[in-house]
Amino acid sequence: MNLHRPAVELDPASLLGGWQALNATATIPHCLDNIRRTGVLANFSRLAEAGAEAPQGKFTGFWFADSDLYKTLEAIGWEMGRTGTDQWAAVLAEAADLLERVQTSDGYLNTYVQGTAGVEPFEHLEYSHELYCAGHLLQAAVALHRGGKDKRIFAVARRVADLIVNALGDDRPLIDGHPEVETALVELYRETGEQSYLRAAEQQIERRGRQILPTGGFGSAYYQDHLPVREATEAMGHSVRQLYLAAGVTDLYLENGDESLLHAMEQLWDSAFGSKMYITGGHGSRHRDEAYGDPYELPPDRAYAETCASIAALQWCWRMLLATGHARYAEEMERALYNAIAASMATNGTAFFYSNPLQLRTGHDGSTEDSPSERLPWYDCACCPPNLARLLASLHGYAATSDTTGLQLQLLSAGTFASDTLTAVVETGYPWDGDILVTVSGQGELAIRVPTWAAGASLAVTDAKVIAEPVPGEYVRVSCEDGATIRLTLPMRPRLVRADERVDAVRGCVAIERGPLVYCVEQADLPDGVLVEQLRLDPSATITEERDQDAVRLRFAAVARPLETELYKAYQPDSPAGTPITVTAIPYHAWANRGPGAMRVWLPLA
Amino acid sequence: MNLHRPAVELDPASLLGGWQALNATATIPHCLDNIRRTGVLANFSRLAEAGAEAPQGKFTGFWFADSDLYKTLEAIGWEMGRTGTDQWAAVLAEAADLLERVQTSDGYLNTYVQGTAGVEPFEHLEYSHELYCAGHLLQAAVALHRGGKDKRIFAVARRVADLIVNALGDDRPLIDGHPEVETALVELYRETGEQSYLRAAEQQIERRGRQILPTGGFGSAYYQDHLPVREATEAMGHSVRQLYLAAGVTDLYLENGDESLLHAMEQLWDSAFGSKMYITGGHGSRHRDEAYGDPYELPPDRAYAETCASIAALQWCWRMLLATGHARYAEEMERALYNAIAASMATNGTAFFYSNPLQLRTGHDGSTEDSPSERLPWYDCACCPPNLARLLASLHGYAATSDTTGLQLQLLSAGTFASDTLTAVVETGYPWDGDILVTVSGQGELAIRVPTWAAGASLAVTDAKVIAEPVPGEYVRVSCEDGATIRLTLPMRPRLVRADERVDAVRGCVAIERGPLVYCVEQADLPDGVLVEQLRLDPSATITEERDQDAVRLRFAAVARPLETELYKAYQPDSPAGTPITVTAIPYHAWANRGPGAMRVWLPLA
Repeated sequence: MNLHRPAVELDPASLLGGWQALNATATIPHCLDNIRRTGVLANFSRLAEAGAEAPQGKFTGFWFADSDLYKTLEAIGWEMGRTGTDQWAAVLAEAADLLERVQTSDGYLNTYVQGTAGVEPFEHLEYSHELYCAGHLLQAAVALHRGGKDKRIFAVARRVADLIVNALGDDRPLIDGHPEVETALVELYRETGEQSYLRAAEQQIERRGRQILPTGGFGSAYYQDHLPVREATEAMGHSVRQLYLAAGVTDLYLENGDESLLHAMEQLWDSAFGSKMYITGGHGSRHRDEAYGDPYELPPDRAYAETCASIAALQWCWRMLLATGHARYAEEMERALYNAIAASMATNGTAFFYSNPLQLRTGHDGSTEDSPSERLPWYDCACCPPNLARLLASLHGYAATSDTTGLQLQLLSAGTFASDTLTAVVETGYPWDGDILVTVSGQGELAIRVPTWAAGASLAVTDAKVIAEPVPGEYVRVSCEDGATIRLTLPMRPRLVRADERVDAVRGCVAIERGPLVYCVEQADLPDGVLVEQLRLDPSATITEERDQDAVRLRFAAVARPLETELYKAYQPDSPAGTPITVTAIPYHAWANRGPGAMRVWLPLA
Repeated sequence: MNLHRPAVELDPASLLGGWQALNATATIPHCLDNIRRTGVLANFSRLAEAGAEAPQGKFTGFWFADSDLYKTLEAIGWEMGRTGTDQWAAVLAEAADLLERVQTSDGYLNTYVQGTAGVEPFEHLEYSHELYCAGHLLQAAVALHRGGKDKRIFAVARRVADLIVNALGDDRPLIDGHPEVETALVELYRETGEQSYLRAAEQQIERRGRQILPTGGFGSAYYQDHLPVREATEAMGHSVRQLYLAAGVTDLYLENGDESLLHAMEQLWDSAFGSKMYITGGHGSRHRDEAYGDPYELPPDRAYAETCASIAALQWCWRMLLATGHARYAEEMERALYNAIAASMATNGTAFFYSNPLQLRTGHDGSTEDSPSERLPWYDCACCPPNLARLLASLHGYAATSDTTGLQLQLLSAGTFASDTLTAVVETGYPWDGDILVTVSGQGELAIRVPTWAAGASLAVTDAKVIAEPVPGEYVRVSCEDGATIRLTLPMRPRLVRADERVDAVRGCVAIERGPLVYCVEQADLPDGVLVEQLRLDPSATITEERDQDAVRLRFAAVARPLETELYKAYQPDSPAGTPITVTAIPYHAWANRGPGAMRVWLPLA
């Protein structure tokens, strides 16, 4: 079963639609400013001026700095496709000029390698990120070609892809330390029909796990080179690399139908999402090596939960959804989107988290880039902000699927969704409201995903026949006549959620969720003199909702326990009583927008 | 108040004495084999053969590989002083030859710098570890001089110290990225009376915290260069660097009496030992940057708890004890020694942990050197094994203190302890037994430390006058006549201990301690089919003791809870019941001697 991507317009008044608009007006321009400021463009212009065959000058930034430009170009491509804007025409022309001039006659293009004396193409793929950068260029070119009618950057990208095909064939079976080119090659194959790109993607994937890459101190799993993809069924190593590779493998399955790939991906998915994912949809519990930890090793304070990892997880889930049609993949996309991914961006669209912890302690040292106390405008390792920009610009593309029978609404946002046979106009205040009203034109089957938390969802239809009633974790299915209306009502009561007891780090705690949103408590919302660390939740307390234009906040009675004075002491069965307090919880994605301060998602029970 | 180091012989039948013997017969020879095997000696011999002024050849290992040799030489020095052995005379002669030949005419000696083209002395102290290595050479020379009657290595070391004095004076105010030379310079001053060494130590210490060192991605705290030592009162950055620096500052106070230094060290100590120390005496909760975390960030599974950090902590506590006479410092020495430090060595003395976690999960990936599932014979970064060797060889030196009034027993081991005025022969099976029988010859005041856990300790004396009755956390004090006997009986009932509630990672858990030992449960001691993760402790269950020659094991009834299948689920007040099981706990220091397997110190309550 391969589902497709219907035409979607998200309502700008919806949360998702609002993020798309903010991305267009704030985040993309901010990315452009910063890739200029940090020397990413200068890495190209220096080479362009010197002539592509005679590189000189000093490369600036990390080896993969080119990808900052490419991801921003991809965002522009999707944004042009979404709105038809041509506000970035000059930027695209400048980029096309630079790329054309820096690309060598054989198609090679990488400013780190070309701009660094003594480094030869593809010689140090364990760290150089050459194929990673190439992949991002290919993805950008696909986005620009589809959405922006670009031909020049697309032509550059095709020459890069042709070089990969020709230079890294079976006689030079190399892989990149950072997967990413796999999905890109499949996407370029889809855009061009050129079989050699699909074949190159397959080669890249089939070469994994044979210890091709020198490992240094990181070990093979860091590079996703520890086991062949059909055997590597535990999520391991650098989380972004793991998840991009999985997306690529799933893309390959979508094109070649090799069931052994899908089977491995289903097992890998169970590992990643069943024992190694944060409740926010974050992936990667270790700062060291930016890696997945052991199963159930999910500390909230030291959650690395890189923004790029959640984006990669969403992209992988999308492909698994296309491959299988299972609602669980869309549910995990939604979890990541409204929580870990949304939290990575400030409300102004121009400051970002790279790591997305679920707890910040009183006394946190936020002096390092890997665990700041507030979002930063940019990062030395700037992979996340432009990754977010490209995701948000293409967000409508993840909201629904279609097949020959009709349309499946996956992300429940307000907007307009059109397959070949029917168009659905969705009116809803989701994720704040649970009422989802759909008006259909055309005929066919409409499916609406019912989240697993939505026990008690109800359905009312006119001019439509119910095929499947609402069941949590499955789809409502309705056969629609032209003009049909469907009202699905999801219960939005706040819920207390706990983790598998093997998640030691949150033993005795609950998280509060409402709809698809995870909530948190910030120091700013506690009474004077009470630290977040003192808070204890009474699970029987009533949680009330406070709604304003922006969000639904939650209020509940709790207890502040006295602080202790001894690090270790004799166990006593009785705990000291606490002082009654009233606490406000806010959506996790909105934290750290009021200055630095302690925060926690997981709240200890009284 | 400055206390002194009396003459001590530990009973070889005691646990501490046994470790000293094992160190002499197994660990020191193993270190010598490995510094030869890994090229540490070859780094010297290559330069020696080339002539010291004409270096060539390829340096092997980390920049600080020289220190592996120096720490092993220090161990040999202490061991010669302890037993009078001359079994390593040939090794010492070989080392002296190499050092003399490699040292340049101006006193410089570092095989990384001398053996690497283009690297100049003291040019990259942020990473080069030149003063760190020099410090270990100075310490080795002091040990050999005191214990081994060595003159040659001592002379080499003095020339190195003189070079530091001359080359890094106020006109070139540099510091090393890794503190260590501070204590060493003070020790060499004590051995020689040469004031310029003390002055150099003071310079090194006073230069800290002024951002002299370039920080790279690590930040200034990593290098202990973030705040001047009187202001840097939160334990931060790389834990070993923090603790070595603190030991050096305390050493400086011991010599110059600057109370502002002691005041800062007391605050820093409260931070490190009051909010950032594992119950095992481990320090450093982050694998990333081998660093201290935020206060109360103490995950048992990702405890870095480097062996070297616990050794450094013990060395710092010793100096604080000398400075203040407070029992708490000796208690923390004992905690580290019997738990984190003892756990770092296998029962055969030739395999080691570098990091000392308090939990190993079922399914742990032990493939990387920073978190193996079992002790390894050696490490690429081999700082810990020879550090352990030098500590164990000098262990008797940490067991007691003396002053003009008499003798203070700090580590309660069986052995003979002699101050100027009285000698105490201690008979005890401690730490397995709580009976401590002391027979005194000579006259004076004998103090015996009463651990904080020893509520209910009792005292009986003959020919002696009790000045202070046993109070937990203080000293029993007895004025002794010649022939006096003192019997102190400490209660050794197993105890359940919990952590400050801010240590989120062990919420709802207790640790079991007995005497100074922390216990743990290993998979090997659970019934078939029950995972460590399923164990739940009933805090009211009776804990029985099983004693054999080697250890006291603990047995108790517990419950095995069923494994869960959902990572996140709706909170329900009731937990599922479990299956009754009987569990054996073993001393933490003995874990992982029966093959790899899950382990935990902190046990969840039922």
